[in-house]
Amino acid sequence: MKLPSAFPLALAAAGLATATGLRAENPPSMNQTYGLVIHGGAGVILRQEMSAELEARYRDALTQARDAGYAVLARGDSSLDAVVAAITFMEDSPLFNAGRGAVLNADGICELDASIMDGRTQAAGAVAGVHHIKNPIRLARAVMEKSEHVMFTGDGAETFARTLGFEFVPNEYFQTELRRRQLEKAQQLEAGKKSAAALHERVTFATVDDNYLIDQIKHGTVGCVALDQHGNLAAGTSTGGMTNKKFGRVGDSPIIGAGTYASNATCAVSATGWGEFFIRLSVAHDIAAQMEYRQTPLAAAADATIAKVGKLGGDGGVIGIDRAGHVAMSFNSPGMYRGYRLSTGAGAVEIFGPAQ
Amino acid sequence: MKLPSAFPLALAAAGLATATGLRAENPPSMNQTYGLVIHGGAGVILRQEMSAELEARYRDALTQARDAGYAVLARGDSSLDAVVAAITFMEDSPLFNAGRGAVLNADGICELDASIMDGRTQAAGAVAGVHHIKNPIRLARAVMEKSEHVMFTGDGAETFARTLGFEFVPNEYFQTELRRRQLEKAQQLEAGKKSAAALHERVTFATVDDNYLIDQIKHGTVGCVALDQHGNLAAGTSTGGMTNKKFGRVGDSPIIGAGTYASNATCAVSATGWGEFFIRLSVAHDIAAQMEYRQTPLAAAADATIAKVGKLGGDGGVIGIDRAGHVAMSFNSPGMYRGYRLSTGAGAVEIFGPAQ
Repeated sequence: MKLPSAFPLALAAAGLATATGLRAENPPSMNQTYGLVIHGGAGVILRQEMSAELEARYRDALTQARDAGYAVLARGDSSLDAVVAAITFMEDSPLFNAGRGAVLNADGICELDASIMDGRTQAAGAVAGVHHIKNPIRLARAVMEKSEHVMFTGDGAETFARTLGFEFVPNEYFQTELRRRQLEKAQQLEAGKKSAAALHERVTFATVDDNYLIDQIKHGTVGCVALDQHGNLAAGTSTGGMTNKKFGRVGDSPIIGAGTYASNATCAVSATGWGEFFIRLSVAHDIAAQMEYRQTPLAAAADATIAKVGKLGGDGGVIGIDRAGHVAMSFNSPGMYRGYRLSTGAGAVEIFGPAQ
Repeated sequence: MKLPSAFPLALAAAGLATATGLRAENPPSMNQTYGLVIHGGAGVILRQEMSAELEARYRDALTQARDAGYAVLARGDSSLDAVVAAITFMEDSPLFNAGRGAVLNADGICELDASIMDGRTQAAGAVAGVHHIKNPIRLARAVMEKSEHVMFTGDGAETFARTLGFEFVPNEYFQTELRRRQLEKAQQLEAGKKSAAALHERVTFATVDDNYLIDQIKHGTVGCVALDQHGNLAAGTSTGGMTNKKFGRVGDSPIIGAGTYASNATCAVSATGWGEFFIRLSVAHDIAAQMEYRQTPLAAAADATIAKVGKLGGDGGVIGIDRAGHVAMSFNSPGMYRGYRLSTGAGAVEIFGPAQ
């Protein structure tokens, strides 16, 4: 929506506030660019190993998730609402390792983690190891908004959810045939190699078709970062973690500062990748810190942090957005499911890296 | 140990390596300052509310913990070993909210979290919500060194411990009479106020004697940061969390980047305080980031980050050490149990803040 330059901004803002039911004290700015970035995981995503049909399904799902979040922003609602809308869509899709379609742990069940952060207040919420919450990102938001805490884990997180009347689903709701086959393969490979490192080597033993499935073991995550018409940033991340995971393993997705970070002073970031490396480098906060302490632009900061991940031996990617609507989609893996859309009209949905 | 300046350093290093059994490829430098800093929690620790006898007990325990870690450094062993030695001492002491003497959760049991990080490799390990591991800091180290993961939670973390032959103790080992009374009080106050916020207000309802106990609800944690003769940094943190905690609540202590961080490029940090605020600000990593990205000295960086915590409404403190042996002990609460000791001869053990 472009206004003639002589149009009184205060009046326009007041009018829009009335029209959308927003509080008058926080009207949208007509000059505020808004938009969002999403990811659906990064990894060994190779063009020659994905059928045209599967690629089309991913592009379609990414576009729908992105546009579900964008619609929230376009009607003047908050970046938090947009993040939840986009992530909920991806949690509900069996294509991504979050919510329905999440990978199975060593016990054959889906164990879900999620986190969310509000850049305006730096409030944050996270859950780790939940088994029956249809949309973990919504529970993370409830931890942020309806408790005085940031992180709840395991059965305790579900007890909290019950006090709020959350929808519970049987764990089978999340499980798909594809993920069961993936777990079988991971366990066979583990048994054959008798080495923890095998989980990261086995890609070389797989057929072309298997490669695609196996990749998801390490890198499945979904995330969204958004900037709303009020100039507020938010970030969220949701995942099923790693196939065949044991010992209540938690990766970076529910860790504020690692998988998710947002501050209106800098940027909103969501990460996806080999979680252990992202925790060790506080990836999401590291990008914000470069902006805060040495005025590095967002995209350059994201590239620098992903380069650190690579130097340490890890891989994956991040998405980010700042208050001016600059976006970052940086990754050192062959591909990352990703998309963005801005009120300027700019937008894209991509899967493969530039080298492909 | 001061050497005459003409003394050949390579020879001295080789000699010392032989004497202490260190590997020749990593000899200690004669010029490397070494030392450590510890904390035993920050909070409303007031001189007029603590008896001389209790103060003496705390000073004695802090001194012993600090010197246990220092002895490790003095014989040329690693900063990781020193961190584990100092924290193990405090976990074993009933005076601190970690290991034995940990606070009780809403179910009346002790639920323990710990994390550790190696500044040389930026490897990290953490456990959250364990109930039977005598020294959680040792299990965090095992996650770092004997798994390819960073964080294990709940029963899964204990299953991992069992595979390694860890010592298990009944939960009653950790529980003390003082903590049971503290839980009763917290639950009575909670029931009376019927407000989550009451947990942070009730200090005003307590007697002078109770104040001391109640304080520990928010702020009990132990931690250590160390610099060894090889110039390597390490950090660790251990806690029982918050009295009467529910829903598998996890604070900052097991969160790498929030409660614990270490990188040889910058510093080692351990935090203690109102964990939610420390997570939201990625406190430990924020201090390292200021050193890395704007060359802020350690102590000033620690002060700046604690000021941010205060601005957001939180309180607590941090300890830090850098490769030159600069130390930081910054807090915005009335007191913080703390101590440090350097190979230069500098050292102290303190409890109260400068305003007291």
